[in-house]
Amino acid sequence: MSGSGSGPSTGSSSPKRVYLDYNATTPLAPEVIKAVEQSMHDAWGNPSSAHEEGARARAVINQARDDVARMIGALPQDVLFMSGGTEANNVVLHCAVTHFRKWCLSQESPIYHHLRPHIITTKVEHDAVKLPLTHRYSIEADVTYLGVENLPEAVLESIRPSTCLITVMLANNETGIMFSVAHIGRLLAEVNKKRDNEGLFKVLLHTDAAQAIGKVPVDVTDLNIDYLTIVGHKYYGPRIGALYIRGLGHKTPVYPLFYGGGQERGYRPGTENTPMIAGLGRASLLVHNNVQDYYASMKKTRNYMERQLKKVFGNQVKINCVDPCIPSDPEACSVPPRGPKQQHFIFPRLPNTSSVSFYYRQVTGPDILRHCRLVQASCGAACHAHTENQSILEASGVCSFHASRTIRLSLGRDTTMEEIDLAIQDIKQAIEKLIGRSV
Amino acid sequence: MSGSGSGPSTGSSSPKRVYLDYNATTPLAPEVIKAVEQSMHDAWGNPSSAHEEGARARAVINQARDDVARMIGALPQDVLFMSGGTEANNVVLHCAVTHFRKWCLSQESPIYHHLRPHIITTKVEHDAVKLPLTHRYSIEADVTYLGVENLPEAVLESIRPSTCLITVMLANNETGIMFSVAHIGRLLAEVNKKRDNEGLFKVLLHTDAAQAIGKVPVDVTDLNIDYLTIVGHKYYGPRIGALYIRGLGHKTPVYPLFYGGGQERGYRPGTENTPMIAGLGRASLLVHNNVQDYYASMKKTRNYMERQLKKVFGNQVKINCVDPCIPSDPEACSVPPRGPKQQHFIFPRLPNTSSVSFYYRQVTGPDILRHCRLVQASCGAACHAHTENQSILEASGVCSFHASRTIRLSLGRDTTMEEIDLAIQDIKQAIEKLIGRSV
Repeated sequence: MSGSGSGPSTGSSSPKRVYLDYNATTPLAPEVIKAVEQSMHDAWGNPSSAHEEGARARAVINQARDDVARMIGALPQDVLFMSGGTEANNVVLHCAVTHFRKWCLSQESPIYHHLRPHIITTKVEHDAVKLPLTHRYSIEADVTYLGVENLPEAVLESIRPSTCLITVMLANNETGIMFSVAHIGRLLAEVNKKRDNEGLFKVLLHTDAAQAIGKVPVDVTDLNIDYLTIVGHKYYGPRIGALYIRGLGHKTPVYPLFYGGGQERGYRPGTENTPMIAGLGRASLLVHNNVQDYYASMKKTRNYMERQLKKVFGNQVKINCVDPCIPSDPEACSVPPRGPKQQHFIFPRLPNTSSVSFYYRQVTGPDILRHCRLVQASCGAACHAHTENQSILEASGVCSFHASRTIRLSLGRDTTMEEIDLAIQDIKQAIEKLIGRSV
Repeated sequence: MSGSGSGPSTGSSSPKRVYLDYNATTPLAPEVIKAVEQSMHDAWGNPSSAHEEGARARAVINQARDDVARMIGALPQDVLFMSGGTEANNVVLHCAVTHFRKWCLSQESPIYHHLRPHIITTKVEHDAVKLPLTHRYSIEADVTYLGVENLPEAVLESIRPSTCLITVMLANNETGIMFSVAHIGRLLAEVNKKRDNEGLFKVLLHTDAAQAIGKVPVDVTDLNIDYLTIVGHKYYGPRIGALYIRGLGHKTPVYPLFYGGGQERGYRPGTENTPMIAGLGRASLLVHNNVQDYYASMKKTRNYMERQLKKVFGNQVKINCVDPCIPSDPEACSVPPRGPKQQHFIFPRLPNTSSVSFYYRQVTGPDILRHCRLVQASCGAACHAHTENQSILEASGVCSFHASRTIRLSLGRDTTMEEIDLAIQDIKQAIEKLIGRSV
């Protein structure tokens, strides 16, 4: 890792900063940087060229596709490289809606011909799923947005004859909550069997695995999904992504968003970004080989951080989605809990993420981060860093009082206990400055 | 440059290869590689993050946007980074058609409400323009495909009340022919004034400048265009691109193809590929500072190559789009010309590109390249390297006899006369092997 053992190098400034925003982006692993560099020097040819320069680039891309596929237990031919997770998620929605429309038009009965596609999702998806749904598909499709409670059952209950797609993220970027996509996949397989007998459209299942990959093992067969979004820069890889499509083109439909030179078998044209693809492959290989270690290390350090937070802040701190909230009564929730021990582990969580809220009435999350000298963290998704947005937290069962007093601390593979101690002292001094007394 | 003075390094194999396929892709300039590397180490933060890591990445992106804009004489705020030229071209078509439809629906008269958009283009565009037109817009739009003769006039004559977009490449990748987009721009400005008075839709003008940038000076004000496509890997930059949009969002319409986290002011969401953007900026700065030298150097070497080809092959060689063809009578054209001196410079050409055909009845372009030991070149676009495709040549006035016997030799900034001599000897031995005698 960059600056291994004490977080990524953050330039020459002193004092040393503590980066705890690994869910926003990760530094590139040294092995990844090396793969990108090597590819820039040695595999710069156009992968479509028939000559040797082209062949060398093709070989690099093939190797990377193998490595990405291996990481998620997929076949290489089921992986398409894309510019990133945003593109991949947009493509999935386009595929499902386009395929449903084609299917409708192919049906004999005219009642199908103008059927609006129906999509099921959650209220806590990343903007790269949420915004295409609200912008592009708001008129042409019906969308059901589900809360995070009882997700598998609620998803199944929401299925209609016109449902074409279920898209549920594998893990939430702000809270770290993990969703039981595998459970949905198993239940959906049964539903689809029945639908097949009834001549209904097979409901497609997508998961945006951006935040899960590199932190927990991800296997497409276990998940029983049709599409899975892969985002390099969330797992120490470069700023490109990939889309897994089960039985690409024959089992699961794929329609390109672009047309052009025929690259990626025509499903994603545009001259391949060989160096970034090489880097994505290398990052995937690292995950394939080490994800259990990454998981264990991050979880140990994250748990240490949460224990230390409780030690330092006592009842004035709350771990969102672990410690309970009263979303219906933020006023009541604003009083630090007394009495019985708090309820724990309501949801399974990513091993590296803590959504932490503080019970200081006059202090918001952004206030704390502005007064931190060392901690580099955020209040939620980086894309919302310059706006106020608590909707994900509130949809995750956090009351508005706590949501506005939350910071997200997301750890990396090499985050150390020493960094955690520094970070907590830094947060403590920030809050003390804000409240004008000791915590 | 990589392997400066004698073409890019092509591995440890011997004998040394001569890369003459710079229109397919270029190696990365050493300065570009350095910028990408530096950014991977120092600017890996999420540019949307409010903390310092984010700020450092934003600064890199802002600098790159300035540099790209300066190269084409644009304002930085009129430049959007994209994954490549394919995406940029697809976005332009999407913008024009979407804006036209919105405009139609906003008109009082119902005759506009179902008007089909009309697009004017050439028969020689890259697949990243041609294929979206034939695939995505074949049903929902009318498209006029023009030959390359009398282009400005033919374009103007083809304008209809429903015309929303003219898209003409600045230079062709296979022949090197340059099109008078500036002339179209001037004439179109007059037409648009009249259309404005008549309450008609303003016709938008786009040029795909992928092959022109880095070889000839390109200035968006001179060109008088609304959209211009920029492709890094054609000018020693990385595998991303950018789209220039004159008066982005207020003068010229832009509608995103994706939705997501709001990056690039929401017009192109997705976490920014900072290292590649940094590299694109550096490549653009090099072009801004040196394009006149690049032009002069490439033209000198290319002209030397064409003279040497004539010396070695005499009347058995023809430079397409310079030496005349009889497209209507390929049989007549198959006889090497005798008599009067050939006509020259029918079209202005890129300084680095020669589309060369050989008069040996039994020998095709692919045959020659397969028997070359050193030359790394292609018969046309790299995207067609594995298929037969002569349509661009034939649409450029090359007869089918010569089209099938053509190889494209495209030179780089550092291609040397020594490499040219090696290449010509290599082509000579390939042809002699194929015809079983001296040329």
